[in-house]
Amino acid sequence: MSGRLFIVGLGPGDLSLQTPRASEVLAQASDVLGYGPYVARVPQRPGLTRHITDNREELRRAGHALELAAAGRFVAVVSSGDPGVFAMASAVFEAIEAGDPAWRELEVEVIPGVSAMFAAAARLGAPLGHDFCAISLSDNLKPWEVVLDRLTAAARAGFVIALYNPISKARAWQLGAAFERLRELLPTDVPVAFARAVSRPDERLLTTDLASAHPNMADMSTLVLVGSAQTRRIERGKRGSWLYTRRSLEAAS
Amino acid sequence: MSGRLFIVGLGPGDLSLQTPRASEVLAQASDVLGYGPYVARVPQRPGLTRHITDNREELRRAGHALELAAAGRFVAVVSSGDPGVFAMASAVFEAIEAGDPAWRELEVEVIPGVSAMFAAAARLGAPLGHDFCAISLSDNLKPWEVVLDRLTAAARAGFVIALYNPISKARAWQLGAAFERLRELLPTDVPVAFARAVSRPDERLLTTDLASAHPNMADMSTLVLVGSAQTRRIERGKRGSWLYTRRSLEAAS
Repeated sequence: MSGRLFIVGLGPGDLSLQTPRASEVLAQASDVLGYGPYVARVPQRPGLTRHITDNREELRRAGHALELAAAGRFVAVVSSGDPGVFAMASAVFEAIEAGDPAWRELEVEVIPGVSAMFAAAARLGAPLGHDFCAISLSDNLKPWEVVLDRLTAAARAGFVIALYNPISKARAWQLGAAFERLRELLPTDVPVAFARAVSRPDERLLTTDLASAHPNMADMSTLVLVGSAQTRRIERGKRGSWLYTRRSLEAAS
Repeated sequence: MSGRLFIVGLGPGDLSLQTPRASEVLAQASDVLGYGPYVARVPQRPGLTRHITDNREELRRAGHALELAAAGRFVAVVSSGDPGVFAMASAVFEAIEAGDPAWRELEVEVIPGVSAMFAAAARLGAPLGHDFCAISLSDNLKPWEVVLDRLTAAARAGFVIALYNPISKARAWQLGAAFERLRELLPTDVPVAFARAVSRPDERLLTTDLASAHPNMADMSTLVLVGSAQTRRIERGKRGSWLYTRRSLEAAS
């Protein structure tokens, strides 16, 4: 088969954080597929067909992309951040596994990107400087009990926790329930940061502590970071503060 | 103070995965500091002073960078991958917290990069497509019991696990001990991948399973990924295989 499929990470938003490899592939693609706001970040030009689908149709979008590639097109599926993190890469491979055996012959390249998690951490300081984990709060694809079990395991073990998909219209109560569980397990003065749309014009950063963290501080575009007992806040007066997690851990803690 | 300090993520190695923001800052810096192989990735030019230090001197290097910035220099501290992940960003903020209060007035920018973890995942398929964690196996900065506790918590909770700093001359037995612990907790057929120097000329990928994973498959430049029960291998005949972790989890598992 001559078709090619690229699964492209666009980075957090600003072009200065999009890799040259992503830009190069997007300049050559015949078809780009993705969620509307991400496809909108790909410059329009003659010869490029855009296929915009809803964010909850990942598997159908993946199948469509594979069909186009199998028909010889140069196809780019785009995700914000890194495409391997709660994004399109896993959906494409799921579609390949279940689909036409000929799809396994396709040339597929995943182009990694600067993830939302690391872009947020960079803006805040270095809150992911020690062991950490990433958990999606979406309970579409896994039972809510599993989310709670993972939050519990991560907090008890001392990981800094990055929460993806914290809240949406269809997912109103989960973030509050997550904070409630974490308040039972962690010192309530551990820092919590809400990093929204990092590097985009509507970026907004908010740092508080677990006692005061409230779901209304987040929206669909927010990455929530929950510190560990090793996460510290450096005050800078009018300049705000930096967050970082110490690299070292004493035997006693 | 007029000095500026940039903590720059170089990405995994190939320039096509280094962000334009990183390249822009490195083209302007008066001083670049870091571990030799990373500093060597910054093009030499008139007006640029290189400061190369050993990899185990992060705090001293951070203090030196802060002194140079406080003296008005345009300073770049470089890390491979993302500087916030087991790299220089946390060391710089630790030095700021403990150091001259005037350092809190400095302009500090952390430039995120494509991390080794996500570059490795992209090459392999999408093994980090579900909840995951990152653990450093270095026991310089934390007790080994904490490492084992975190591996145990992560495996029991179903996270895919990225292991940083898996092995070195001074750290010979830890990776084997980690595999031993994981074999007690996970099905021994979960995939394990060794991704070395991804995107560099000496890149090497190896995929096996937990039963067969052996420390001699890793070196200092290797990122080790341990799958979960949801991680699957798609066979492609002569073309090898892809790894991906399913986005969905049934209630029963």
